Amino acid sequence: MKFTKPQTLAQIADIIKATYVGDDSFPVLGMNEIHVVEPGDIVFVDHPKYYEKALESAATVVLINKEVDCPNGKALLVSDDPFRDFNKLTDHFSPFVAARAVIADSAEIGLHTIIQPNVFIGNNVKIGAGCVIHANVAIYDNTVIEDNVTIHSGSVLGADAFYYKNRPDHFDKLKSGGNVVIHDHVDIGALCTIDSGVTASTTIGEGTKLDNQVHIGHDTIIGKRCLIASQVGIAGCVVIEDLVTIWGQVGVTSGITIGARAVISAQSGVSKSLEGGKSYFGTPADEFRKKYKEIASIRLIPDIIEKLDKLHE
Amino acid sequence: MKFTKPQTLAQIADIIKATYVGDDSFPVLGMNEIHVVEPGDIVFVDHPKYYEKALESAATVVLINKEVDCPNGKALLVSDDPFRDFNKLTDHFSPFVAARAVIADSAEIGLHTIIQPNVFIGNNVKIGAGCVIHANVAIYDNTVIEDNVTIHSGSVLGADAFYYKNRPDHFDKLKSGGNVVIHDHVDIGALCTIDSGVTASTTIGEGTKLDNQVHIGHDTIIGKRCLIASQVGIAGCVVIEDLVTIWGQVGVTSGITIGARAVISAQSGVSKSLEGGKSYFGTPADEFRKKYKEIASIRLIPDIIEKLDKLHE
Amino acid sequence: MKFTKPQTLAQIADIIKATYVGDDSFPVLGMNEIHVVEPGDIVFVDHPKYYEKALESAATVVLINKEVDCPNGKALLVSDDPFRDFNKLTDHFSPFVAARAVIADSAEIGLHTIIQPNVFIGNNVKIGAGCVIHANVAIYDNTVIEDNVTIHSGSVLGADAFYYKNRPDHFDKLKSGGNVVIHDHVDIGALCTIDSGVTASTTIGEGTKLDNQVHIGHDTIIGKRCLIASQVGIAGCVVIEDLVTIWGQVGVTSGITIGARAVISAQSGVSKSLEGGKSYFGTPADEFRKKYKEIASIRLIPDIIEKLDKLHE
Repeated sequence: MKFTKPQTLAQIADIIKATYVGDDSFPVLGMNEIHVVEPGDIVFVDHPKYYEKALESAATVVLINKEVDCPNGKALLVSDDPFRDFNKLTDHFSPFVAARAVIADSAEIGLHTIIQPNVFIGNNVKIGAGCVIHANVAIYDNTVIEDNVTIHSGSVLGADAFYYKNRPDHFDKLKSGGNVVIHDHVDIGALCTIDSGVTASTTIGEGTKLDNQVHIGHDTIIGKRCLIASQVGIAGCVVIEDLVTIWGQVGVTSGITIGARAVISAQSGVSKSLEGGKSYFGTPADEFRKKYKEIASIRLIPDIIEKLDKLHE
Repeated sequence: MKFTKPQTLAQIADIIKATYVGDDSFPVLGMNEIHVVEPGDIVFVDHPKYYEKALESAATVVLINKEVDCPNGKALLVSDDPFRDFNKLTDHFSPFVAARAVIADSAEIGLHTIIQPNVFIGNNVKIGAGCVIHANVAIYDNTVIEDNVTIHSGSVLGADAFYYKNRPDHFDKLKSGGNVVIHDHVDIGALCTIDSGVTASTTIGEGTKLDNQVHIGHDTIIGKRCLIASQVGIAGCVVIEDLVTIWGQVGVTSGITIGARAVISAQSGVSKSLEGGKSYFGTPADEFRKKYKEIASIRLIPDIIEKLDKLHE
Repeated sequence: MKFTKPQTLAQIADIIKATYVGDDSFPVLGMNEIHVVEPGDIVFVDHPKYYEKALESAATVVLINKEVDCPNGKALLVSDDPFRDFNKLTDHFSPFVAARAVIADSAEIGLHTIIQPNVFIGNNVKIGAGCVIHANVAIYDNTVIEDNVTIHSGSVLGADAFYYKNRPDHFDKLKSGGNVVIHDHVDIGALCTIDSGVTASTTIGEGTKLDNQVHIGHDTIIGKRCLIASQVGIAGCVVIEDLVTIWGQVGVTSGITIGARAVISAQSGVSKSLEGGKSYFGTPADEFRKKYKEIASIRLIPDIIEKLDKLHE
C-alpha cells in the first residue's frame, strides 16, 4: 500500500507515538508486509528471530520493538508493540468507512457494464467496461476490476484477511488495508470469496476462470489463463503461475508457489511448492505417477501377507 | 427452547390433541431435543429403542407413542405421532413469520454497530455494540449477537437444521425453533453458514475466529478462542472445546467432541471424538505421529516386495 | 432448449451466416448439446473425432466445420467455427437481458409463497405455491421452481455453466441458454449453487433435500428423495438416481451416474459411475468393504516388515 502522498518519518512517528532513528524529513511512501515490501515502505517486526530479515528487506523504514543498529540509508520506528502500531497506521491511511449508499458515489463504473440488483459496491471501487456483476455480489472498498469481467451472484471481493496474532488472552487481527485486483476477461463463479490483501493486492490474472464456491486468501496472486474448479480453497500469500489447472475441492496451503501449466487433480491437498508442467494428486499432493504407484502398491498388501505366510510354513 | 410463559400439561395436550398422564396443571416450561433437555421440558420419542433414554432424561414431560408407566414426578403426552406433534408445538411457540421489513422493527442493535447495505435482519434479533455486519449478510429470527462481532459479506446465521425423519414416502423435516448465539469478539468470514439449533442454540464462543465458507451445523457448540480456517464443515450437535485449531477443508461428523487445544490438519475427516491437546490428521483423522508413520510405511511396500522376491528365489 | 416457435434451416443459417445442406424450409425446433439432443434439435461439432457421434445422434441438424455427407432426413449447417456460431444462436434465442427490477415483472409466483427481503428473481421465472424463498437468494432467468420448495438464504440458482473451449490464446465460454428446474418438496440449504444447464435443464427431483454450501454443476440431474449433506460438490452432466445419500464434502466428477439407493461416505471422491444399492467411500471412491480392508491392511505393514526382518536373520 502506497500512501496517497509521501509522508515523513516525523509525521509517521507522531501518528503512532513512537520514537525514531533517522531524519525528521526521511521520506516514507507506503507500508507493506514483509513478503511484499518495496523501497520507501514501512515494514514491522516484533520478534528477534525476524529482526535481520526485516532490517535487510527492501523496506526503508523498520517498525521494531528494540532500538537496534539502523542499516545505512534506512530509518527505524521504535515501539513497544509494532503489530498494534502497524494496525494504527492502517486505520489512519486506509480506514474502514461505513457505506452511505448501496453503490458508493465514489465508485467508477465503465461503459456497457451491467450491475444487477442488490449488488453492494464500496468506496473507491473501479469497475471497467463490458463487465456483468450479477445480483447480490459484494465488492468491498478499493477493489479494482478491469474490463470484460463476469462475477456471478453472491460472490464477495475484498473481505478481511484471516490473519491474527496470538496474544496471551485473545487473537489480535492484522487489519486489512490492501485490496483485490481482477484483470481483464476474468470470470468468477457464484459464491466465491476473494479476500483483500493485508497491505498489497490479492490478484486474479487476465483470462483466468473460477467456478463456484472458490476461496482465494489474502495476497494470493493467480496468473493468467488458469482454470479453477468448484470448491477449491487457496490460502493466503500463494503464487499460482500462468495456465495452471486446479480441479474441484483442492486445498492449497499458504505461502507456496504452483508452477506454470501444473495440473492438480480433484480433492488434492497441496502442502508444498510444486514445479510447473506436471500433474499432481493426493494429500499431500505428489506427482501423479508416484501417487498412482502408491495406491497400486496398497492393493498388493494382501498378496504380500499370503506370500509371507507361505514362507513361515 | 423455553416458552415465554409457563404452560400446563392440559394446555399443551390441547394444542396437539393428545391424551396425557399427569395433572391438568402440571407445569411445562419448554421443549427440547433429547441431548439438550432440562427439567420442565417436553422431549419426544417415537421408537421403543429410545423409550428408556427419554423417560430417564432430565425432561419432565415425555411426548411418546405408547402409554407406558409414567416415572415419578413426570408426565406423559401420548400421541400416535410424536415427531409430527413436536413440530406442531414448534409451529405454535416459535412460528416462522414472514419479514415485513429488510431489518425487522423488533431488532435491537447496539451502539456504534455498523450495518452495511442489503443486510437482512429477522424478527427478535439482538445485536450488541461495536459490531460490523457487512453487506448481504442474512440473520434469521431470534439470533443473538453479542458485542464487537464482525460478520463478513454473505454469511447466513440461523437457517434451518438439516434434520429429517425418513417417512415411508418422504423426508419429514424436524422444524427449527432454536437459534444462533454469537458471543463477544467473534469474527465470522464471508459466506459462512451457521444453522439454527433445533430447539436450543448453535453457539460460537468468545473470541473465536472463522475464516470464509465455514459451515457450522445445528446445535453445535464451539468454545472460546478457536481458529477455524476456510471451507471447514462441522456437522450438527458437535462440541468443540476452547482453543481448538482446525485448518482448511476439514470435515467433522455429527455428535462428537473435540477436546481443548486439539489441532486438526487441513482436509482431515474427523469421525470420532478426539482428546484435547494433540495434533491430528487424515481421513479418518488420527494422531499426527501415527498417521505419519502409516504414510511412511506405504512408501516401503515396493522395498518389501523386492525383499520377498529375493527370498522366493 | 426448444425455440418458442419452430424455425427453418434458412432462418437459422441467416442468423449465423452459414451455408447449409438441406431444404430452406427444413424445420428446426431447438438446439442442444450432444448429450441431451432430441429430434428437431441443432447440435454442434467441431472436431473430426466427434463427427460420427454428432451425425448419428438424435439431432436433426448438425452445425459442423466440414461439408460432410448429410445423413438421410437430416440437414447440415456448415461453419468455420461451430462453437462460436452455437453461442450466436444462444445469444439470439435466449439472450441475457439485464434486470429492470429486483423481482422481474415477468416472474410468476404461486399462492402462499413467501419471498423474503433482498431476493433477486430474474426474467421469466416460475415459482409454485407454498414455497419459502429466504433472504438474499438469487434466481436467474428462466428458472422453474415447483410447489412447496424451501430455499435458504444466499443460494444461487441458474448461474452460468463452467464450460470453456481452450482457444490458442484464451478460454472461450460456451454460453448458457438452459435453466434450472426444482421439483416439488425440495429443500435447498443456505449458500448452495445450482448452475444453469447449457441448453437443457439442471434438475433437482421431487422431495430431495440439500444441506448448506452444496454445488450442483450444469445439466446435472438429481433424482427423487436424495439426501445431500453440506459442502458436497457435484460436477456437470452427472446423473444421481433416486434415494441416493451423499454425506458431507463428497466430490463427484462430471458425466457419471450414481445408481439408486447408493450411499457415499463423507469426503469421498467419486471418479467413475457407481452401481446403486451399495455403500462407498474413499478417493477414488470404492465399495465400503473393499476400502475398509485396504485401510486395515496399511496398518499391518509394520508387522510385515518385522516378519521379513526375522526371515532375513
